[in-house]
Amino acid sequence: MTQVNHQILLASRPTGEPGTDNFKLVETAVPDAAALADGQVLVRNHYLSLDPYMRGRMNDGKSYAQPQPLNEVMIGGTVGEVVASRSANFKVGDKVVGMGGWQEFQLVDASQRGVLQKVDTTHVPLSAYLGAVGMPGVTGWYGLVKIIDPKAGETVVVSAASGAVGGAVGQLAKARGARAVGIAGGADKCRYVVEELGFDACIDYKQHRDVKSLSAALKADCPNGIDGYFENVGGMILDAVMLRANAFSRVAMCGMIAGYNGEPIPLSAPQLILVNRMKIEGFIVSEHMEVWPEALKELGTLVATGKLKYRESVADGLAAAPEAFLGLLKGRNFGKQLVKLI
Amino acid sequence: MTQVNHQILLASRPTGEPGTDNFKLVETAVPDAAALADGQVLVRNHYLSLDPYMRGRMNDGKSYAQPQPLNEVMIGGTVGEVVASRSANFKVGDKVVGMGGWQEFQLVDASQRGVLQKVDTTHVPLSAYLGAVGMPGVTGWYGLVKIIDPKAGETVVVSAASGAVGGAVGQLAKARGARAVGIAGGADKCRYVVEELGFDACIDYKQHRDVKSLSAALKADCPNGIDGYFENVGGMILDAVMLRANAFSRVAMCGMIAGYNGEPIPLSAPQLILVNRMKIEGFIVSEHMEVWPEALKELGTLVATGKLKYRESVADGLAAAPEAFLGLLKGRNFGKQLVKLI
Repeated sequence: MTQVNHQILLASRPTGEPGTDNFKLVETAVPDAAALADGQVLVRNHYLSLDPYMRGRMNDGKSYAQPQPLNEVMIGGTVGEVVASRSANFKVGDKVVGMGGWQEFQLVDASQRGVLQKVDTTHVPLSAYLGAVGMPGVTGWYGLVKIIDPKAGETVVVSAASGAVGGAVGQLAKARGARAVGIAGGADKCRYVVEELGFDACIDYKQHRDVKSLSAALKADCPNGIDGYFENVGGMILDAVMLRANAFSRVAMCGMIAGYNGEPIPLSAPQLILVNRMKIEGFIVSEHMEVWPEALKELGTLVATGKLKYRESVADGLAAAPEAFLGLLKGRNFGKQLVKLI
Repeated sequence: MTQVNHQILLASRPTGEPGTDNFKLVETAVPDAAALADGQVLVRNHYLSLDPYMRGRMNDGKSYAQPQPLNEVMIGGTVGEVVASRSANFKVGDKVVGMGGWQEFQLVDASQRGVLQKVDTTHVPLSAYLGAVGMPGVTGWYGLVKIIDPKAGETVVVSAASGAVGGAVGQLAKARGARAVGIAGGADKCRYVVEELGFDACIDYKQHRDVKSLSAALKADCPNGIDGYFENVGGMILDAVMLRANAFSRVAMCGMIAGYNGEPIPLSAPQLILVNRMKIEGFIVSEHMEVWPEALKELGTLVATGKLKYRESVADGLAAAPEAFLGLLKGRNFGKQLVKLI
């Protein structure tokens, strides 16, 4: 009997805010295990990762990555289990992380280096390889360690602080002796950022209607100014941070969700880059594969020993992925957004 | 008979565009050579340097330096000759560079390290120590070598290309095998930048009314995109450059003349920092004294051997300094703006 593989394709490109109608759920047949070619591995995906970068891929314009092709399975990170293998490197039952996309099963040519990684779930939960011990964690690690490079006693501000990336940034900053101040949307998220993740303070941006108000809140929580800022958001928050930036401060620019849906949001006072001798650097973590082993080692150890905490928002079943993704873009998730597929 | 020292003081702070009424010419007595204290040196200034940074000092707001105090001699670099000395390190007739300010004579406590430097005028003209072999030259060197760090074959764009800083940037870029494209105001300056300084191309920004037009001109002259940009100006030019910036491009931010007189000019599309994984870094060359010896050695050798060319606009007499300075801010100078005092 042929098993059914559900997939979600990009059906159309959004104009402005995306909607569920940009996606299409389809059924295909799961490849027959007996028909695998040499080197192929069949993986059943357990979790799909939803990440802000996917919004950029939905557009056709110039971005840091190729656009997601129409009518193909949406790109996405996955963790799962090998259910059939004709590769010497993988056996049935192995837990693996890869880029399986928005689907339940994936057929992988495991002879291609790096497309599938075996992971150890003895001390680290499988889903964490999509979050704190995966791309989001390494993203936070890279921006903090390689760009912000905080000294003990410095102040690091992080937007989207309750998320998978931001949570890692603040906890890694604390581990280096820095003061960590989060920015998040809502009292619940802020309480979690301080009480569970251990940040020194967290500002609820929803309580601040303009740059002046947010900047005043930053002044109160960053009495010695801001030395490093991990930018996940863009727009007004960056403007407010720049007004409190210290001389020689560093901004790691990782996400600009605020500007994804339409017109770019200007940076109000670029002369502050000069006045404060700031460094602003954009980066994409997949272009720095050389740091992944070092980063994953620190992140894996911290998670296994309970020192790096995180939270997950889990949507149930592949069909729930589009709604969960749209919610992520609006900040409705709380922690790492996953879709549970099994 | 007591000799007269003319000085120009900052009389008031400008609101918006500065005018000559912000300055005041006064007469004081030149200190009596016989009355010098131990370690003091009396210098007669031959040239005063006028530089855009002085505009920032006229304001009272937060900037990278202390504001120029009111009713004190305007700050400024000078070259001159020792006319009296009670320092073992300086003798009458020595040529020196220092921060003598807008005045004809200066009394220096030469025991303070670094306030006065003896210079060799055998191969390098005295005035060049205020330009190509002085602060402007080192400014260009630092931004190009330490921030842009161009590889052979890359394209470096420089605004204010006919000026003391910009001219050095382009010629140093060419010396490193990069393509140098200038931006300057007017056909004369552009011709000079290409024909005399040896840039590959130069764009007359006065021919371009908007970002789109300037960006199209940059596309034509930078067929492989822009890898490095030396920012002397701010405003529309930076926006246009960013539209042509390559992945991993670097912006050295040295001046933002466009925004000095009032409201900051926003950066239109900051998301391009992320999209193109750019690095934007502001700097002030006086905070990097460790590079001066290396930079001055290269610059001095290039000037002495005729390989680094520059031009000077020379105003005559101290009283002409305010008008010359206002002209500099409007781009009316052609090359390094000096005031000849003797």
